[in-house]
Amino acid sequence: MNSPSLALLTAVLLCATAGPAMSTSTTDDIPSHTTAQAATVPAQERPRNVILLIGDGMDEQQITIARNYLKGASGELVMDGMPLRSAVQILTVEDSTEGRAVYVADSANTATSLATGAVTSRGRIATTAGSDERLTTIVELASAAGLRSGLVTTASVTDATAAAFAAHINFRLCENPQSMVNVSYGDIPLGDCTQHLKANGGKGSISEQLAESTLHVLLGGGEKHFAPNIEGGAISVAELARRNGFTLVEDEAALLAAKPDARLLGLFAPSTLPVRLQGENAREAEAPDPSLLNHVHPYLGDVTLPQPMRCEPNPAFATVPSLKTMTDAALRHLSLDNSRGFFLMVESASIDKQAHERKPCGSIGELEQLDEALASALAFARTAPDTLILVTADHSQAAQLIPYHSLFAAYPIPTYTPGKLARIITPEGSHMSVNYATTNFMMEEHTGAAVPLFSNAQGQGRVPPYLRQPELFAIMRDYLRL
Amino acid sequence: MNSPSLALLTAVLLCATAGPAMSTSTTDDIPSHTTAQAATVPAQERPRNVILLIGDGMDEQQITIARNYLKGASGELVMDGMPLRSAVQILTVEDSTEGRAVYVADSANTATSLATGAVTSRGRIATTAGSDERLTTIVELASAAGLRSGLVTTASVTDATAAAFAAHINFRLCENPQSMVNVSYGDIPLGDCTQHLKANGGKGSISEQLAESTLHVLLGGGEKHFAPNIEGGAISVAELARRNGFTLVEDEAALLAAKPDARLLGLFAPSTLPVRLQGENAREAEAPDPSLLNHVHPYLGDVTLPQPMRCEPNPAFATVPSLKTMTDAALRHLSLDNSRGFFLMVESASIDKQAHERKPCGSIGELEQLDEALASALAFARTAPDTLILVTADHSQAAQLIPYHSLFAAYPIPTYTPGKLARIITPEGSHMSVNYATTNFMMEEHTGAAVPLFSNAQGQGRVPPYLRQPELFAIMRDYLRL
Repeated sequence: MNSPSLALLTAVLLCATAGPAMSTSTTDDIPSHTTAQAATVPAQERPRNVILLIGDGMDEQQITIARNYLKGASGELVMDGMPLRSAVQILTVEDSTEGRAVYVADSANTATSLATGAVTSRGRIATTAGSDERLTTIVELASAAGLRSGLVTTASVTDATAAAFAAHINFRLCENPQSMVNVSYGDIPLGDCTQHLKANGGKGSISEQLAESTLHVLLGGGEKHFAPNIEGGAISVAELARRNGFTLVEDEAALLAAKPDARLLGLFAPSTLPVRLQGENAREAEAPDPSLLNHVHPYLGDVTLPQPMRCEPNPAFATVPSLKTMTDAALRHLSLDNSRGFFLMVESASIDKQAHERKPCGSIGELEQLDEALASALAFARTAPDTLILVTADHSQAAQLIPYHSLFAAYPIPTYTPGKLARIITPEGSHMSVNYATTNFMMEEHTGAAVPLFSNAQGQGRVPPYLRQPELFAIMRDYLRL
Repeated sequence: MNSPSLALLTAVLLCATAGPAMSTSTTDDIPSHTTAQAATVPAQERPRNVILLIGDGMDEQQITIARNYLKGASGELVMDGMPLRSAVQILTVEDSTEGRAVYVADSANTATSLATGAVTSRGRIATTAGSDERLTTIVELASAAGLRSGLVTTASVTDATAAAFAAHINFRLCENPQSMVNVSYGDIPLGDCTQHLKANGGKGSISEQLAESTLHVLLGGGEKHFAPNIEGGAISVAELARRNGFTLVEDEAALLAAKPDARLLGLFAPSTLPVRLQGENAREAEAPDPSLLNHVHPYLGDVTLPQPMRCEPNPAFATVPSLKTMTDAALRHLSLDNSRGFFLMVESASIDKQAHERKPCGSIGELEQLDEALASALAFARTAPDTLILVTADHSQAAQLIPYHSLFAAYPIPTYTPGKLARIITPEGSHMSVNYATTNFMMEEHTGAAVPLFSNAQGQGRVPPYLRQPELFAIMRDYLRL
């Protein structure tokens, strides 16, 4: 961490301890609704909680697209009502010690920044760039201090964002014991985690590390990564988790019926959970179709744009618990008879994944899921006021809200995006065009803009209006007094 | 300015306003540095000022691109040190009464929202959608209350953003008496303002309305719109302005030499002012060049990307005053012997215009200009603490910061943007790829994301973390007690 950010942080922390007057800046969301516990236990002994909600790829374009669809252009999301708003600059470096700045991140290095306060290289899970050393995570610090931790995601629990809070490995795709050596897609080599094999003195794959973690709650997808046998053993990773004290649940009924004091491992799908919304007939963004004459000269001919469509429910979504249901369950299990407090990370992963696949309806539904989980977190904080709630994104994404009618529509020539386009009919009766054009590849690229951060009133005096992503780690750590 | 210390100062100021006296939400920036005037005149009688700085098209992508280039990925712009940050949802409607929502704006309807608090349709200058009625602007309210007003821009002063604060017309391109009927580009009809001709009982073109306005300061480009004769008269629009009390200045020396009590009309270029930075050899973003084999199948062949480049000074910039110089002059003339206060709008217009032309270096330099003007505004506010400073954008723009090395670089196929690409070597020694791909037209399209808003401490308790763009008008009006 560099000195400007340290200076800033120091000032903010000084601020937070600047005497009785500052108590006003650290008051509860709704002071009149404190719990009996809060009323009788001195503030310095009351349990403190952090709930970090991450919208993967949830940049300002994604938020506006979702707001327009879900609430109308004049409407408000739950996150819009948060009392503090900041911008978070993402930091990434080349994979070497003293590596130069890289301006676009992936979800592995950004989750590492949030979980550990370090800047690392793309693909890394809580390990240092170049030197591949383990970075201590906030989950590990919380556990050492007697606090509970939970991770909830709509991705595989072994996917990058959740993994970086409780595992350490050089490459994010080493998600299970069978994906440690020569990880590939078809015949294309993508990476290797040989040095982290247990046989080589390492901690093994991500699922093995999660199964052996101190997490109290771990909910999401990724059952397939817990099915293989552990490295060098005759039991599955799931069985390893059971022996380590986890109660395994595989559907919503089992999640809701779990004993309230159980440590939970919920795996509700083989991989990423199905998303809530999809385009009509599962349509995604499509390429505009110029006429033959337009191929001859760009001023000639015409173009057929993709037909406007509505968003519709994805039937497969009914088979899994919502992010709100998982968040509510996590909050119950983390808070029960807990005098020390907890750290909970909640991720809506497929805002990003659906954007990679050029599916704006999918991203909209997953942003709605995050907003609902935030409503649950805010409701919880009304009963446990010493709860810092942060909502942010890990990086920006490809989708752009572009004009439905071009700004240059008066010019009698066919104009259209060179990328892929979805034209969505919104519930308020207007048309919204969403563009994906970062690459010709089958998956869109991330983008590099700073991301939004929303805080509840507990962030006052702690969260500045502009910060670098790794600084969020120290804010959470200090709030929990770790 | 030293950014770490600015960040520190910001944190301390946050601290200072968070104390017992949350009264304090309306205290001065630096209470111990109030002017002699402020010390002796009761608060409710002291002059109040609003400085609204608009980065045209300055969305989070543009800000991050500029920050990375100008300050490095870990650095800070002046605006990053502002104590309050918000998001502003842009609202636009179809051009009819009761028109439906339109999700991407232009600079005319957004400036109208800021200047009047109304939501209107694209292309309109302070007139209502459909019914074409005049909307009262904050400049007019300020004038009626005895406050001064100034407009400063790097565009023509007749261009949409400035125009909407002091003129009323149905179409933004009616900038002078010769552009009122059948406004066209070549033979392409773009619009018509016949009903606003003086002959038809209207107020005439934008330049005529500005020449007859009560503005105290009007600085920027656009001399060509003041050269034609006024409608039905034998004098130029410039002469009309002179007769209305303006002192005309046409270069920086004249600007600096102007009598301190003069009302100023500064026109420093025929149209938009030259920008500060350009790409090496005036290069802009260019199309990737795939090999013949890649045209046969996207998995085959290879691609030649545009050569990386540095940004360099634009020689033409030396011929005009900087935005900071114009802002400083405006502040001098507006504040001299002024017991009532003022409203000043400062626009860096070519963040947007250069993005339309796919020139990232141009946008970077113009964002730097806005940041410098902000530093001037902050310095002024230290001597006049009852000054509300707001920095915002009018709408989002096309540029995207995309990966220099693709996230999917392991796949042995050529991947590249279908749009235009600039690869910029940054002063900190890294590479930054900027993508433009909203359209195949010669000009990029705007985008629809909510935009950032930064406020100084005077915004505390007045500027919420989320608002709709027209709400900014009421915040400024109420601050000035209009």
